Amino acid sequence: MSLDAVLARIDRDLDQSLERLFALLRIPSISTDPAYADNCRAAADWLAAELSGLGFSASVRPTEGHPMVVAHYPERDGTDNRVLFYGHYDVQPVDPLELWQSDPFEPRIATRDDGSKMIVARGAADDKGQLMTFVEAARAWIAETGGLPVAVTILFEGEEESGSKSLGPFLEANADELKAGAALVCDTGMWDKDTPAISTSLRGLVTEEVTVTAADKDLHSGLFGGAARNPNHVLAKILADLHDAGGRVTVPGFYEGVAELSDEVRRQWEGLDFSAEEFLGQVGLKLPAGESDRSVLEQIWARPTVEVNGMIGGYTGAGFKTVIPSKASAKVSFRLVGDQDPKTLVEAFHDFVRARIPEDCSVEFESHGASPALRIPADSPVLAKGKTALQDEWGVEPLMIGMGGSIPIVGAFRERLGMDTLLVGFGLDDDRIHSPNEKYEMSSFHKGIRSWARILGELAN
Amino acid sequence: MSLDAVLARIDRDLDQSLERLFALLRIPSISTDPAYADNCRAAADWLAAELSGLGFSASVRPTEGHPMVVAHYPERDGTDNRVLFYGHYDVQPVDPLELWQSDPFEPRIATRDDGSKMIVARGAADDKGQLMTFVEAARAWIAETGGLPVAVTILFEGEEESGSKSLGPFLEANADELKAGAALVCDTGMWDKDTPAISTSLRGLVTEEVTVTAADKDLHSGLFGGAARNPNHVLAKILADLHDAGGRVTVPGFYEGVAELSDEVRRQWEGLDFSAEEFLGQVGLKLPAGESDRSVLEQIWARPTVEVNGMIGGYTGAGFKTVIPSKASAKVSFRLVGDQDPKTLVEAFHDFVRARIPEDCSVEFESHGASPALRIPADSPVLAKGKTALQDEWGVEPLMIGMGGSIPIVGAFRERLGMDTLLVGFGLDDDRIHSPNEKYEMSSFHKGIRSWARILGELAN
Repeated sequence: MSLDAVLARIDRDLDQSLERLFALLRIPSISTDPAYADNCRAAADWLAAELSGLGFSASVRPTEGHPMVVAHYPERDGTDNRVLFYGHYDVQPVDPLELWQSDPFEPRIATRDDGSKMIVARGAADDKGQLMTFVEAARAWIAETGGLPVAVTILFEGEEESGSKSLGPFLEANADELKAGAALVCDTGMWDKDTPAISTSLRGLVTEEVTVTAADKDLHSGLFGGAARNPNHVLAKILADLHDAGGRVTVPGFYEGVAELSDEVRRQWEGLDFSAEEFLGQVGLKLPAGESDRSVLEQIWARPTVEVNGMIGGYTGAGFKTVIPSKASAKVSFRLVGDQDPKTLVEAFHDFVRARIPEDCSVEFESHGASPALRIPADSPVLAKGKTALQDEWGVEPLMIGMGGSIPIVGAFRERLGMDTLLVGFGLDDDRIHSPNEKYEMSSFHKGIRSWARILGELAN
Repeated sequence: MSLDAVLARIDRDLDQSLERLFALLRIPSISTDPAYADNCRAAADWLAAELSGLGFSASVRPTEGHPMVVAHYPERDGTDNRVLFYGHYDVQPVDPLELWQSDPFEPRIATRDDGSKMIVARGAADDKGQLMTFVEAARAWIAETGGLPVAVTILFEGEEESGSKSLGPFLEANADELKAGAALVCDTGMWDKDTPAISTSLRGLVTEEVTVTAADKDLHSGLFGGAARNPNHVLAKILADLHDAGGRVTVPGFYEGVAELSDEVRRQWEGLDFSAEEFLGQVGLKLPAGESDRSVLEQIWARPTVEVNGMIGGYTGAGFKTVIPSKASAKVSFRLVGDQDPKTLVEAFHDFVRARIPEDCSVEFESHGASPALRIPADSPVLAKGKTALQDEWGVEPLMIGMGGSIPIVGAFRERLGMDTLLVGFGLDDDRIHSPNEKYEMSSFHKGIRSWARILGELAN
């Protein structure tokens, strides 16, 4: 049987698969920082070249931001049963760099006492390691059988970590070329290292930057302190006001469109082997910080949140400077669920902030992206095939889970191309994505490749 | 009369005086940033060499921080009537550098439409321009008469902008050498550009850095948002809680030791030609931000304050990063008045912060210095002499004013050496000290030198 031969080849070629992943990980494709634009381009070029080498018709497509990679196998003729695979080649910034135990862009394999191995590098899990599980699965099918069991189009973007600004217009402009029977996305996690998962609900994401300006120059706090408005104080008050004492978000109308869990889902989640203590304990915390009347699982899977991801104002260097700054700013993100409307929420947030700006101060907003929450229908045709393939590979039934993170592409596929998405990924909660010493389990990489090989086989049925 | 000849020489030699000031301004002696330690040392060396050239017995003295410059004229023999002049050669950092219209350490003279001139550079007003008014006055006396009318010891420190940590121990260790009949300090301002002032009350200063730690690593807000504690939120709440809606500081016991103005002082201040609108208007503001039941003059001269001089947490670079940081920190300063006790206040502040730290988070404090408020007695012997000299030079009676800033040395002179201090300076409110494009009026520099020449003459009487 050809699948068995494909799986055997995957096992045999794992070292070469790793070498290719390492080559991609060495490219510092940080999308949020314009200084790394050339590196983003280099990562796109590398991927297009790899796919061309496999026989894909691959191209790098310019956007107003970082380029897209689009590849077809075989060439489209409009009659095939086709799936669209999506991944992103951009990565998060690496600061604080001093907390990395090795160069974030010099990937290495670390071996634990129990013999298990992990791949350590920025992007190892998010999302280069994950997207390469699919590329390597395709490689094995083509090498072993001379082709893929189902026609495939691949779309890699380079702005996922910076708001995916070019994605909507690109899908719109290339809808005919990209439309497929279903989409496959590998940017999610497993339940634990032995139990695969399919993510069927995703929180949306709104990212806003707020800058408060008081005086038109920095002031000396000895001369002006006590009389002149300090934008640090204004901003701190705004940020502090975002939550009440019970952890509930206070922006008016924030919870509109947020449904309560159905009894069935609540029962299912309560039955899961999830420990809030362990979840928080792995990062050195004990007390859930969110809405005090919700479980931790509900907080991270089903409830909308507001987080201050960054704030800065005044002198923050070594020593002390008694300045009253002219400006202070914060980056604030909202995770959305259910039917919360990103546009309404952005307006409500702006009103909330403006109501707290003194008459002689001013405020500016910059949007870094806004996408609604999503739910994948339980009767989606690809879901059953994905479940079967994962069960075959891992020997246990995959769990249908919620996801706290946001993958804007899934909404865009639904809205713009009318496609359902199968969200399968092999990340783990402790992968430290977006943090120093990001890693990806060797077992995730290896069995991830095998899982995609199986899914491709199932999709042909 | 020799004073007239001294004044004439000052007028004649103004260009050379400016050249010497420019040489000192070119040295980037930023004391808060360890990267500039060599430059601080260079500024001390430069001053010692200048004073030696005038006939002072001058030396650079090491401390645990930046060095002191001590110079005597003539050598001490223990019998002379002597004054101690104090200034500081260190300057504030220059960020944000992009707001400077020219290199902060390449001094230049700018001429206004009305022909008036100003010296633009970091340290032009605070304190290099000011301390050089005294050095140039001494130079003119020595050049014209072969000596000074009164024996002088000069003390220049290099840590005034970073908490004056070495000053107390240095005074203690060198009390015999430094003790004098009175101290002269030139680090204060005029009432306006035509009206000199002597500062008779000074606020104290406590500077504290607070760092809140939540999780033991940075987290992804999609995975952990809503459940994990965000130190930005904890810190924002603490900072927001420092003031109530009326602008009053809420730290328990904060106002203990703060006296109300006497009726006489209140009447005097009400009679001053001070416009709160103009004071705030010069920096683009309109509404007083402090205690709502106090006048602006009271807020900046007679009331204690708390200001957040810096705060930072999470991702603050270009673009967006959906991180929940491990740490967030703030630099907070307190201006003290009356009998407020710095130590008690620091403890109250620490308690205030700790009460707002969740059980599974931690907080660290770093002190950057603490000094009490001061009042110069109205019957201080040097005060009358200073008044006379300033009236002679400026043609108007100098005002006795309060001062919002803090000059730790004045307290140290009182406490450790039992000396009164005459606080005379020629800065103006719009000198932009601690801000981009700091300047010092040419008239302040020129008439400042003449004023010190007259004060030296008076002190001999």
